[in-house]
Amino acid sequence: MVTFSDITAAAKRLAPFITTTPLLESERLNERLGGRLLIKAESLQKTGSFKFRGATNRISQLGAEEKKAGVVAWSSGNHAQGVALAAKLQSVQATIVMPADAPHVKINNTRSYGAKVVLYDRYTESREEIGTQIAHKTGATIIPPFDDQYIIAGQGTVGLEVATQTKLNNAPLDDIVICLSGGGLSAGCAVALKELSPSTRLWVAEPEGFDDAGRSLRAKKPLRNEPGGTSICDALLQPTPGELTLPILSDYGAGGVSAGDDQVLLAMKTAFEEFKLVLEPGGAMALACVLSGQLDLKDKTVCVVATGGNVDQNIFETALHR
Amino acid sequence: MVTFSDITAAAKRLAPFITTTPLLESERLNERLGGRLLIKAESLQKTGSFKFRGATNRISQLGAEEKKAGVVAWSSGNHAQGVALAAKLQSVQATIVMPADAPHVKINNTRSYGAKVVLYDRYTESREEIGTQIAHKTGATIIPPFDDQYIIAGQGTVGLEVATQTKLNNAPLDDIVICLSGGGLSAGCAVALKELSPSTRLWVAEPEGFDDAGRSLRAKKPLRNEPGGTSICDALLQPTPGELTLPILSDYGAGGVSAGDDQVLLAMKTAFEEFKLVLEPGGAMALACVLSGQLDLKDKTVCVVATGGNVDQNIFETALHR
Repeated sequence: MVTFSDITAAAKRLAPFITTTPLLESERLNERLGGRLLIKAESLQKTGSFKFRGATNRISQLGAEEKKAGVVAWSSGNHAQGVALAAKLQSVQATIVMPADAPHVKINNTRSYGAKVVLYDRYTESREEIGTQIAHKTGATIIPPFDDQYIIAGQGTVGLEVATQTKLNNAPLDDIVICLSGGGLSAGCAVALKELSPSTRLWVAEPEGFDDAGRSLRAKKPLRNEPGGTSICDALLQPTPGELTLPILSDYGAGGVSAGDDQVLLAMKTAFEEFKLVLEPGGAMALACVLSGQLDLKDKTVCVVATGGNVDQNIFETALHR
Repeated sequence: MVTFSDITAAAKRLAPFITTTPLLESERLNERLGGRLLIKAESLQKTGSFKFRGATNRISQLGAEEKKAGVVAWSSGNHAQGVALAAKLQSVQATIVMPADAPHVKINNTRSYGAKVVLYDRYTESREEIGTQIAHKTGATIIPPFDDQYIIAGQGTVGLEVATQTKLNNAPLDDIVICLSGGGLSAGCAVALKELSPSTRLWVAEPEGFDDAGRSLRAKKPLRNEPGGTSICDALLQPTPGELTLPILSDYGAGGVSAGDDQVLLAMKTAFEEFKLVLEPGGAMALACVLSGQLDLKDKTVCVVATGGNVDQNIFETALHR
């Protein structure tokens, strides 16, 4: 169980480390959409994604002995960087297991924070096995990407900030749309909103073909993605919803939306033009779902969480040429 | 004379309109530079630059009759967009005189805010003449780009925010570097810092060949740029420092730094990689001056104001390929 007080406690712990990211708004885009679109720019968070929040919260819970033994995590990129910097700032050695075909920027950045990076082949090897072996051998603590009370509470501070910022902005929040991979961020935000803005509808945004959470929420049972799908959203390819996160989202009454690669590229271009933000494909998913018309914004205020900005240059240029 | 209380009054007036832009920091870049580099991301301000602040403050001072007669301004781009949106939000008709060769994104955006755009040839016509004629004919109030008490006070709210945010961040500010065209922003920040952080050294950042303010500050008299220079920083080509702004900067003891096009492109790329920010050339000038080593950051905390993000796609791609 993750409670609202877990999130306020996390917010206090995170305060010295994180950036309070802004809520951005474009009058021009609002006019086009007929409502208010607010972008929570977590791409501006340290390490370029919200993952730094949960990792910082989790690592801050380790005892002195555990800190000495280090931490281990597996991730295609953003959790990797989040854990690497969170560990560094708390003087903990991190080992990160990453797919050899992850975006270069994510691998290089993870190394640059002083983490040891172990590469694996995502088609023939299991990252869980490799990571668990390292943990057994070294005594390092595993920092899971989403299914963990402290990770969820840490990511939930995004929801806390959004609720506070919309209140300051005099913008009662009708809907919030959140990019989803394992659901740590959206589950944490659900816990925060349940307390602070319970009438806000929550939508998880996933790539077409990877909409396991949306389908699971509709079916009211955990479903798995069909194998063989492809998407440019390297951060959102988790095959199943989390065991802790799905029940929280289901309890909140969250729904699912999804978009394809082309809509994601267009959303990245719109973020460049209208908000002067660099978004990675997975970080633009929620915006893509809104811009492609899946949510009617007419006379409503809708927040989109832009979750990350770690994009290789060539993909970014592809988006600009969209 | 612009006083500190002009700036706090402006901050109150601006609160319902502006975005409080974040102060961003990259641990990786800090490590490379040996100090703390803080980016005040005014590129995320509404209309993509700080100019919206001064324009909003100035227009809020108009009486009901003046508001009915409209406003007129001339600008290569960012002041144009700032005035256009500020006018729109206060239900005032704006006419903007812009050079025909300004970046398309700036012309289109100005029009999109409902302003009437009058194009002129910057080599054969005088924008001041065209604008003044419009003002005489229509009774519209001229909104000057920098040499105005309310404009300076509005831009000075950036300095107010920086001082507050660095205090919260526990980062006593050794230096601040601010991109300069006419000096409204840097003069306003000087007034704010004189009250809140008087030990902070202030540097104005200008393109090589357009360093009229830096040279004027050293010579202790107003100097003009030599004609014939070229720069990709379309926002920073003002030939002389402002009559109001130069004395304020001189009184504060400000210094000047400058950088060339190639250093600006590299700074834009660094902003993309390290801060996930889209900066225009002029908006990256202060960062360019710091990254090119003109300021020693060793064990210091230095704030760079990233003033704008309105960049045409092809220039942005050129920067990414730098």
